[in-house]
Amino acid sequence: MLIREATEKDWPSIWPFFHAIVAAGETFTYPMDLDEGQAQGWWLLEDPNRTVVAVDDTGTVLGTAKMNRNHMGNGSHIASASYMVAPEHSGRGVGRALCEHTVDWARKAGYRAMQFNAVVETNVNAVRLYRSLDFEIIGTLPEGFNHPEHGYVGLHIMHKPL
Amino acid sequence: MLIREATEKDWPSIWPFFHAIVAAGETFTYPMDLDEGQAQGWWLLEDPNRTVVAVDDTGTVLGTAKMNRNHMGNGSHIASASYMVAPEHSGRGVGRALCEHTVDWARKAGYRAMQFNAVVETNVNAVRLYRSLDFEIIGTLPEGFNHPEHGYVGLHIMHKPL
Repeated sequence: MLIREATEKDWPSIWPFFHAIVAAGETFTYPMDLDEGQAQGWWLLEDPNRTVVAVDDTGTVLGTAKMNRNHMGNGSHIASASYMVAPEHSGRGVGRALCEHTVDWARKAGYRAMQFNAVVETNVNAVRLYRSLDFEIIGTLPEGFNHPEHGYVGLHIMHKPL
Repeated sequence: MLIREATEKDWPSIWPFFHAIVAAGETFTYPMDLDEGQAQGWWLLEDPNRTVVAVDDTGTVLGTAKMNRNHMGNGSHIASASYMVAPEHSGRGVGRALCEHTVDWARKAGYRAMQFNAVVETNVNAVRLYRSLDFEIIGTLPEGFNHPEHGYVGLHIMHKPL
């Protein structure tokens, strides 16, 4: 698996699983009917923020991550990141590799910590992955997310010093 | 004291204390050198979000608040708000009146909770006010804010069910 900079040429490979994940409405606080143009603008970030794809030996896109400054001004030393893995390629360590990549990026870019603002508490695989990489839940917004199946569930705020 | 909708005509009354508060860099995660045009765009929100001013009997602007959706998609039921009170009019209950106003607005607009994303822990007057209005600290981002005097201090995430 290789992780490399994402370009506009990767978008047609990203959008099918991006769209499926967002439309399912179980893990992201994005509008479930988010249109493709807006999605591309939100996901493919410009320097100094960054977006990458994880690809296999054949060049197939397995997943993607974006990483960015989370707060401005005197909170500018806090980064954030988001991840999407194509469902058909889950369970192969793609999410872990992407998460590690963003942590490395943030550390090298001089950030002092990474914060996730809204991790749906029923997204247990993500929570387990982040915890295994030493992210801690520093708080939970009660009933912060209206899950299509489970109803109102918490949104974790997670944090890792760098 | 009257709280009413803010218009562009109020901006020249808002900007002097807005600028002083942001340039001091002690309470907001805004760039300390934020320019006036960008500040106006960030603060004077459009429907369905909202911005108000608190004025006295002579029409003097004492403070201002903006209120808005905090999360998108399946988190759309969470509101947020921000407040600025002109330093020369502090201690007169302006902040409290503005905060109560935004809570009422959010409740009437159908939000289920209000969340503040980044309350600087050394801003003790604000923390005390929010607590007195039944906001709770649900978590603190350690060293999330680089205070010009105190160095790295925490950023509270605060929450109130509506």
